[in-house]
Amino acid sequence: MKTLLKNLTILTMLNDSFFLGDIGIEDKKIAFVGSNPSFKADITYDMSGKVALPGLVNGHTHLAMTLLRNYKDTQPTLQAWLNEIFPIENKLTDKEIYIGSLAGLAELIKSGCTTYTDMYFNADQTIKASLEAGVRSVQGLTFFGDGIEAKRRIRENYPKMQKAIGSSDLVRTDAAVHSIYTCTKECYQIAQQWAKDNNTMVNTHLSETFKEVEDSIKDFSLTPVKYLESLHFFDTPSYLAHGVFIQDEELAILKEHNVSIIHNPSSNCKLASGIAPIAKYKLNGLNIALGTDGASSNNNLSLLKEMNLANLISTVTTKNPMALTPYEVLKMATINGAKALKLDDKIGTLESGKEADITILDLDRVNTTPVNNPFSAIVFSADTSNVDTVFCQGRCLLSGGKLKTLDEKEIVKNLKTAVNKVINL
Amino acid sequence: MKTLLKNLTILTMLNDSFFLGDIGIEDKKIAFVGSNPSFKADITYDMSGKVALPGLVNGHTHLAMTLLRNYKDTQPTLQAWLNEIFPIENKLTDKEIYIGSLAGLAELIKSGCTTYTDMYFNADQTIKASLEAGVRSVQGLTFFGDGIEAKRRIRENYPKMQKAIGSSDLVRTDAAVHSIYTCTKECYQIAQQWAKDNNTMVNTHLSETFKEVEDSIKDFSLTPVKYLESLHFFDTPSYLAHGVFIQDEELAILKEHNVSIIHNPSSNCKLASGIAPIAKYKLNGLNIALGTDGASSNNNLSLLKEMNLANLISTVTTKNPMALTPYEVLKMATINGAKALKLDDKIGTLESGKEADITILDLDRVNTTPVNNPFSAIVFSADTSNVDTVFCQGRCLLSGGKLKTLDEKEIVKNLKTAVNKVINL
Repeated sequence: MKTLLKNLTILTMLNDSFFLGDIGIEDKKIAFVGSNPSFKADITYDMSGKVALPGLVNGHTHLAMTLLRNYKDTQPTLQAWLNEIFPIENKLTDKEIYIGSLAGLAELIKSGCTTYTDMYFNADQTIKASLEAGVRSVQGLTFFGDGIEAKRRIRENYPKMQKAIGSSDLVRTDAAVHSIYTCTKECYQIAQQWAKDNNTMVNTHLSETFKEVEDSIKDFSLTPVKYLESLHFFDTPSYLAHGVFIQDEELAILKEHNVSIIHNPSSNCKLASGIAPIAKYKLNGLNIALGTDGASSNNNLSLLKEMNLANLISTVTTKNPMALTPYEVLKMATINGAKALKLDDKIGTLESGKEADITILDLDRVNTTPVNNPFSAIVFSADTSNVDTVFCQGRCLLSGGKLKTLDEKEIVKNLKTAVNKVINL
Repeated sequence: MKTLLKNLTILTMLNDSFFLGDIGIEDKKIAFVGSNPSFKADITYDMSGKVALPGLVNGHTHLAMTLLRNYKDTQPTLQAWLNEIFPIENKLTDKEIYIGSLAGLAELIKSGCTTYTDMYFNADQTIKASLEAGVRSVQGLTFFGDGIEAKRRIRENYPKMQKAIGSSDLVRTDAAVHSIYTCTKECYQIAQQWAKDNNTMVNTHLSETFKEVEDSIKDFSLTPVKYLESLHFFDTPSYLAHGVFIQDEELAILKEHNVSIIHNPSSNCKLASGIAPIAKYKLNGLNIALGTDGASSNNNLSLLKEMNLANLISTVTTKNPMALTPYEVLKMATINGAKALKLDDKIGTLESGKEADITILDLDRVNTTPVNNPFSAIVFSADTSNVDTVFCQGRCLLSGGKLKTLDEKEIVKNLKTAVNKVINL
């Protein structure tokens, strides 16, 4: 199957330039980028006025938390909010996790995302939804608690995840350890050993709040990064979500071990955690990617919004509009995300031979005209109303803004029913 | 002409509650809110699953600057950017101002805005576009320079504006004085006298950057608010755009004179100006409204985005999620905007007798489901893709997300032509 996308403005994300050209897709892969008159397509789309970029990579989310979007979310403290959330989460079954994940996937596709990393429980349900949607993912075998619980999850949850994945090459399983304040040293060590044995990566929430840093010093006599280093956590390829309060001397440790930071600006602002100084981290040579966090602490899953916010809060806090340019921000949401997940051999740029994960925006709209500079237009002007077409591994998931693999009305209906059920249980 | 909107979730913005009900529109006005079985409608819309709120009020913009959206906007300094912008602005004629304004109006309607305040030159062209679009506005008779220039503008520009307004009651003209660093004392005094004579309001950019405050102290031996007070500026009803660096002792002056602040968070972040501490201003009893600023320093005109950003940056800088709740933010974009412009007798809430400026959002979408709390859903989850229907003064400007008074394709085409012409002149 050969598909030809004609007359696009193409942002390969190999550099900060762009050009007019065509893209050929053959089965799962990009056959060419630019021009190839000998390419005989089965289907040809005229994409005049539209812009192609690599499918966006959401480095950190909890998809099924779409169930709790906008639920009692304005609370005086994080703890007060968690006190509302936890009792509801305890009532969730496979069915709600599946429905919530499906809703999250519809939202990801409609906002131009083709790859995401998830951390939640009952991940087999999220995998099932993900494969129906056709979205690429890194699924967390999620650890929470002590060593005994960690072993139980490897024993019970991992086989379910494997079964849900089947023979698909769209899903990888990483070890996702919740946090240093909810997981014991043994839990971290078991999770890491599992990741090593399975030749995969580990990730964790880290340095999200100042309280976490204070507690780490109190409990372990070490700041969070140094504590994880003491557990040899970074000996396994790893990435960290949040990283709001990383100390200068910790940056060298992360650089040495090639650890990426997944920046979640909406969540960090909304929960009053703080603003991660990512321009400084970048200057220190760290790879910075972007995540939305879950819909209950954002409250949506659009990387277009996260890119905009990442630039704005970086610019105002550094007082330097060049500290994080629109091009650098778009890298965070594409190739940097791919690098963080060690998927950059497959995705993250538009190049022949890479898998065909492509997002196409219609910038010929009043909110994005004139385009002038497509990087600025995407980061500053665009929103989900501009997302026109999405391919993942060569499969069309969105066309003309309409979902091709999922039924939006059905998803919305089922989500409402599921939410009403669990809230009123 | 009687229109009935049925089965809405209604946010009147009279308080922080909401309810299911109907809204009746009779000619220009709201006939009832809630239920009225005896209302005999000419047209009835079933709005099940949709949410009605007062039409959004954009307290500060420069509509025609849509022409320069995304144009060389990532520059190391504000001055470097202005050096790129000014030569282009000098080439603009009536035709480009009209086309740029029309594009801005299309974007305002598509993002749920029904009233805006503009400050730009050739305002008669913006008025012409505005009346075609059917959007309510407060147009600045804009002052820039010295006293001689101020008199020239009253003599030459104001009659053109009056002619463009004709008999319409959708437009009011205020005196809009650019800034204390571009306008002389005489200019401010002439503008204010004109506003007094015409029984209208004055507005100006103030305390936008720290440099402006420093220069004010150097040049006038007074901080900006005190300098304007020394000119008796606040004796005429007034409002200020930006107000990022208002000192504590200045807040009392503004409170005493009932001066509103128009907060422009995207622009203030993007231009690295700073974050206005609006939660503190609010605690001091000031009325805070919201603006997008022009599209070249934002780079769009969506108050939905501004509401989201206003909450996020307030929450993270105050470390208090309750400092500016979603309800308070939605007030900023509705009734507070109406109060700032002294239009709250006509608009800003949904009440019978007020003019029918109504924005209807479709929250039955994957990005906003579950709604749980409509204030959270609007401020945190929604974007322009959720804007379904817009009425201004009882006239339908948007239906099912489609513009009714303007032709989007034609506007985009004309805008591109105009921009290419002026950039390449």
